[in-house]
Amino acid sequence: MSFEIFSFEIISLIIAILGLIFAALIALGIKRAASGPEEAQKISSYIREGAMAFLAKEYRILIVFVVVVAIILGFSAIGWRVALSFVIGAIFSVLAGNIGIRIATMSNAKTAWAAKQDLYKGLKIAFSSGSVMGLTVVCLGLLGVSALYLIFKDPQIIYGFGFGASSIALFARVGGGIYTKAADIGADLVGKIEKGIPEDDPRNPAVIADNVGDNVGDVAGMGADLFESYVDSIIAAMVLGVGVITLFGEGAVTLPLLLAASGIIASLLGNVVIKLIKKGDPYIILNKGIFIAAILMAVGSFFVVKYATSGGLNIFYALLTGLVSGIIIGLVTEYYTSAIRRPTQGVALSSETGAATNIISGLSLGMMSTVVPILVVCGAIYVSYSFASIYGIAIAAVGMLSTLGITLAADTYGPVADNAAGIAEMAHLGEEVRKRCEELDAVGNTTAAVGKGFAIGSAALTALVLSVSFSQIVGLRSIDILEPKVMIGVFIGGMLPFIFCSLSMQAVGKAAFGMVQEVRRQFKEIKGLIEGKVKPDYAKCVEISTAAALKEMVIPGLLAILIPVVIGFTLGAEALGGLLAGAIVTGFLMAVMMANAGGAWDNAKKYIEAGNLGGKGSETHKAAIVGDTVGDPFKDTAGPSLNILIKLMSIVALIIAPLLIVSPPKLKQPLQIPFEFRSPVTGPSQFKGPAAPPPSKDQKQTLRGILDISSQMIEFQVGDKVYEVIGPTPQALRGEGFKEKEEAEVTGVVSEDTIYAQSVITVDH
Amino acid sequence: MSFEIFSFEIISLIIAILGLIFAALIALGIKRAASGPEEAQKISSYIREGAMAFLAKEYRILIVFVVVVAIILGFSAIGWRVALSFVIGAIFSVLAGNIGIRIATMSNAKTAWAAKQDLYKGLKIAFSSGSVMGLTVVCLGLLGVSALYLIFKDPQIIYGFGFGASSIALFARVGGGIYTKAADIGADLVGKIEKGIPEDDPRNPAVIADNVGDNVGDVAGMGADLFESYVDSIIAAMVLGVGVITLFGEGAVTLPLLLAASGIIASLLGNVVIKLIKKGDPYIILNKGIFIAAILMAVGSFFVVKYATSGGLNIFYALLTGLVSGIIIGLVTEYYTSAIRRPTQGVALSSETGAATNIISGLSLGMMSTVVPILVVCGAIYVSYSFASIYGIAIAAVGMLSTLGITLAADTYGPVADNAAGIAEMAHLGEEVRKRCEELDAVGNTTAAVGKGFAIGSAALTALVLSVSFSQIVGLRSIDILEPKVMIGVFIGGMLPFIFCSLSMQAVGKAAFGMVQEVRRQFKEIKGLIEGKVKPDYAKCVEISTAAALKEMVIPGLLAILIPVVIGFTLGAEALGGLLAGAIVTGFLMAVMMANAGGAWDNAKKYIEAGNLGGKGSETHKAAIVGDTVGDPFKDTAGPSLNILIKLMSIVALIIAPLLIVSPPKLKQPLQIPFEFRSPVTGPSQFKGPAAPPPSKDQKQTLRGILDISSQMIEFQVGDKVYEVIGPTPQALRGEGFKEKEEAEVTGVVSEDTIYAQSVITVDH
Repeated sequence: MSFEIFSFEIISLIIAILGLIFAALIALGIKRAASGPEEAQKISSYIREGAMAFLAKEYRILIVFVVVVAIILGFSAIGWRVALSFVIGAIFSVLAGNIGIRIATMSNAKTAWAAKQDLYKGLKIAFSSGSVMGLTVVCLGLLGVSALYLIFKDPQIIYGFGFGASSIALFARVGGGIYTKAADIGADLVGKIEKGIPEDDPRNPAVIADNVGDNVGDVAGMGADLFESYVDSIIAAMVLGVGVITLFGEGAVTLPLLLAASGIIASLLGNVVIKLIKKGDPYIILNKGIFIAAILMAVGSFFVVKYATSGGLNIFYALLTGLVSGIIIGLVTEYYTSAIRRPTQGVALSSETGAATNIISGLSLGMMSTVVPILVVCGAIYVSYSFASIYGIAIAAVGMLSTLGITLAADTYGPVADNAAGIAEMAHLGEEVRKRCEELDAVGNTTAAVGKGFAIGSAALTALVLSVSFSQIVGLRSIDILEPKVMIGVFIGGMLPFIFCSLSMQAVGKAAFGMVQEVRRQFKEIKGLIEGKVKPDYAKCVEISTAAALKEMVIPGLLAILIPVVIGFTLGAEALGGLLAGAIVTGFLMAVMMANAGGAWDNAKKYIEAGNLGGKGSETHKAAIVGDTVGDPFKDTAGPSLNILIKLMSIVALIIAPLLIVSPPKLKQPLQIPFEFRSPVTGPSQFKGPAAPPPSKDQKQTLRGILDISSQMIEFQVGDKVYEVIGPTPQALRGEGFKEKEEAEVTGVVSEDTIYAQSVITVDH
Repeated sequence: MSFEIFSFEIISLIIAILGLIFAALIALGIKRAASGPEEAQKISSYIREGAMAFLAKEYRILIVFVVVVAIILGFSAIGWRVALSFVIGAIFSVLAGNIGIRIATMSNAKTAWAAKQDLYKGLKIAFSSGSVMGLTVVCLGLLGVSALYLIFKDPQIIYGFGFGASSIALFARVGGGIYTKAADIGADLVGKIEKGIPEDDPRNPAVIADNVGDNVGDVAGMGADLFESYVDSIIAAMVLGVGVITLFGEGAVTLPLLLAASGIIASLLGNVVIKLIKKGDPYIILNKGIFIAAILMAVGSFFVVKYATSGGLNIFYALLTGLVSGIIIGLVTEYYTSAIRRPTQGVALSSETGAATNIISGLSLGMMSTVVPILVVCGAIYVSYSFASIYGIAIAAVGMLSTLGITLAADTYGPVADNAAGIAEMAHLGEEVRKRCEELDAVGNTTAAVGKGFAIGSAALTALVLSVSFSQIVGLRSIDILEPKVMIGVFIGGMLPFIFCSLSMQAVGKAAFGMVQEVRRQFKEIKGLIEGKVKPDYAKCVEISTAAALKEMVIPGLLAILIPVVIGFTLGAEALGGLLAGAIVTGFLMAVMMANAGGAWDNAKKYIEAGNLGGKGSETHKAAIVGDTVGDPFKDTAGPSLNILIKLMSIVALIIAPLLIVSPPKLKQPLQIPFEFRSPVTGPSQFKGPAAPPPSKDQKQTLRGILDISSQMIEFQVGDKVYEVIGPTPQALRGEGFKEKEEAEVTGVVSEDTIYAQSVITVDH
């Protein structure tokens, strides 16, 4: 080993800080870029103010929520350290989102203005702002986890950090998702359809709210979602690493930090590559950066695993599984939702026979698109488990998210380009700028769709790892579906995504209804508005969207937090495990289905608008608009909210796990080790345990303590610690003349709370 | 005990035959009723011929399928007895469907004609034809199971009968579902929308195919679906009954037959009640009959359980759970899909803002409507399990389906009334008759919706019981989700309903496309058709629908059969158990969602057509039509097909179970019984096993045989039979001086292949 293993957390801490400095430098570069004409700056500032107004209102609710939960955690048996981690997690997530939105809303006008010069200049500014967001998310995440590990030295405590991140994600993703679609539908329904004015027209009172929505939903929401997945996967891998120290060395616990740090470096290099390319299709440029980062990560992690751990390259293979799976899921999403591919063109074609066939065809595509992601996740589970057991699955999740620094940059690029296109229109920057911005926007739509697929895949894998970690912490040997309680848990868990989707889609409907009424009111009451002589009251629309979004997310949010608690304390830990499994399976399926159906409807409409199948204004186009409108809450509200649901439920289960402990944690399948009993009465026993290869010498220990065979299992107390002895039975030891309780020496493999005994000898008789 | 318990199967056999005779008498009564004018008779005969054409073509494929599968089963380790049962199950299901369609297509014109006299006369004829179908299904089902039990005396063999029923259900439900919607959409799209002629207009070439579809889908399809659930639940309860003989007496095995027979009698009496009522709302009349049958069943089963079994009333309570659950699920379905309730009116209201909001609102309703059915099924599992363990869950399923004789009659009534309305229109029987028939049809829509909810609930419970039975037969002690293979099984299982829905909705699209082209062709090429001078070529449309339906069901059908086999033989029995669990959970959720969303869209449209929210022809109405069209494949093809998917997969697993056996079947949790060892060497042992109340004396047995302690478990051979001895460990017995293999006497509770030992004594030493 060439690393000093105890310093993994310090290395990662330093890299995280360096990454943040790098992000700050990029931000500085954007700040220095030209902002363009005053009109564009003014619109950009409206959007920023609107977004900040949403955040400010959100924070007011958040503070109450965070303080209340922290007090409950701190004063319960869960303890103040988890509470503190929770608060820090919440603050870091808020910080990442806030920085992301500030940069995104600073960059939109600059992107439009830069595109006036040159397409690639625009691309660079928009992507730079994405990079700031991407790097901020991963570096703050890694910083928080590393620092908390340095302080507490116990990864389990850091689940509090993950819970903090989850809570913010709930507000940002669910609230943001409702906000963005309410504003979008409100703006379109009255502006485009009733008044016949074009999209992004400054006369539309909801136009700023619509642009704010892109930032609130796709920047802050997506960022908080992936921040949560990122830190959760690292923490889970650390917790599960404790159990495999004997296999992979002590480095197993902090290795995930080092791998994440490697991912940050790989992402930074990928970033540089994108900055250096000056020609070609913007989409291919972005993809090149992402692929190069992935390859660098693969190479880097090979050396990290090889030199920082014992146990060979198994961990590396597990990581690779995750890295590759993430890329495949992204590609499949692209295949199903891209306007140049057969599936989406099929949806467009089905619009020729009307809205109904368009809907059926989109739903059918969404359902079918679950196949590859599900099989990829199953494959990842199988392969990574076979390489490194449950720890391997956690490492696969870390691998999938390792290059988040650059994948999230590509996602965040989308809304910035979208906003830039809007500003180009509203500030009358000219046809050419508008066109270039739209070209950048189109690329952004694809990266956003891919990003959604990736977010779902990583959320599912993260939630799965969290659930496994939960069952280990509460000491479940198994979660047996044949137990009626577990089956009930699976059924109820499976149902939750359906309720959650139903509630969030209804929420969009209600919020949009309020918005429609306000926009109609303004057009009616504000004289000269439709003629373009007077400005509408943008702030009022922002306010309505904000209030509605935050109100409507309360019930789904409470459901996600309370149901695991209720099931855990009534039906028990095993049923709660079933609940999580059920929720993960249907949540994953529904999320993929909704995201891809939504993406396909969106792009089918765009395909027709590009002049195919009758083009804009045709009956076919009208039918496609119906699908697109249904797809909006699918892909931007209900679908993404499911990522939050499954992770939040899992982390809530983990937080309450200490209150649900079933029995001391132990391995499911006792190792089969030959053992012999010796007692002064009978001498060495003539019989041995089941034959199995003896464990290697360095894992064996001999402990002296008090052996207790009075109950059904053999307990062995060494100082303050009580182990369960596996191998002999109490009856057999009694048969050998052991007393119910006496001093003894046990030799065997010691693993957490269990000793797999090779011999048991009474000390004095 | 006042019954001679060995005659349960004979009693039920006799009742089944009596029920069939009763059904024949009702059929005779219908046959004698007046058929009305020649025009009506002719149309009715077209429909019958079309339905028979579909059946004939289906049978040609079926025969090949059944013969091939029977040969595979017969020549494999599964054996000829299962193969024979399979063939008989297929024949009986075909018979039930064939009789049902014959009666339904005989009754449609008679219903219309009777309605000319009097609404109630029409109701009676339509319901009578439903009764024939309902009674035929339950009596043939009970007859088959009882007879096979009399022959083979082994309920496990009879799963072959269930597999036969499942295979037919696949063809009838999936094929029928595709048929009915292809014809419906084809008729509506060209006739109503393109040509502007009314529904059921005889000039429409697809009109007969559309009416045939109602029979093929809603009579034969629904019948085969419920026939399968009915026989599967009875067989599963019998198989699980073997395991609880010690608790409830030997009657536990054949009790399900007796309970089913009681249900037939209760259904018959309910039938009589409906016939006797001569005024009031038809919907309430039907419901009265159903409720009275349920109450009679409850009372009857109380006495049956009390006098035919030992173990008190626990089995009765379990049965009651199922009976009540079925009724609640029906009521909830009615609540969500009825035009007079708030949810469906909400969908209608949302149509005011266009097709997109109508779709979102319907999907949202469908998702939310899963809550109560899921909770009811969970409650049923919990309560029935707590009363009578796994056997209790099976009995709950039997209870839910016990009054199928009358609930299915109410379902089948629907398509007959629907056809009658069509015939009244086509044969120009006058406005009043048409109106009365439409009133009867409206009631039929509600009963059909309720029937769908009931079919889904019972399918889920049946599939669940089948899966549990599967895991017992292969000897799984648990299905542990924490095992990656099981998790993979759950994921893939959860995905299957999504693929299945996607495929079946696409199939409808493709089949409908072919139909649309044919109808357009006829309107174009047949001169004088639109003027009503020439008859269209009905048969050609029937042919197209038939061919398309049977072709398109091949892939989903193969998936349902092959995937369990593939998973079972690659990932093993436990993963297959996970697969089934995943499929049942998402299958149930999706089926409920699709059925209720479809029902709500349908009735929202009807609500608007009744003059609300702008009425027929308004923009709101147009938006509602989009929802209705999306809902058609939801509620009549994809949704119901999921019932088949989950049951078929479970029964396939059961059929291949003998090839997947993990270890000899045993109870999961060994009973804790005090035991003592005695061997000539050490004398009576000084230690006893864990304390627990000793079992009652009559359950204890003393057996003499060869005791083998050489492996990890203690085997005890008595004659040809080998038991596992639970209580002492091999080590402990060795410690007592037992030899590795010697003659011994074991006293304890004997259960299937296991002895829970109270003492073990060597015989000679």
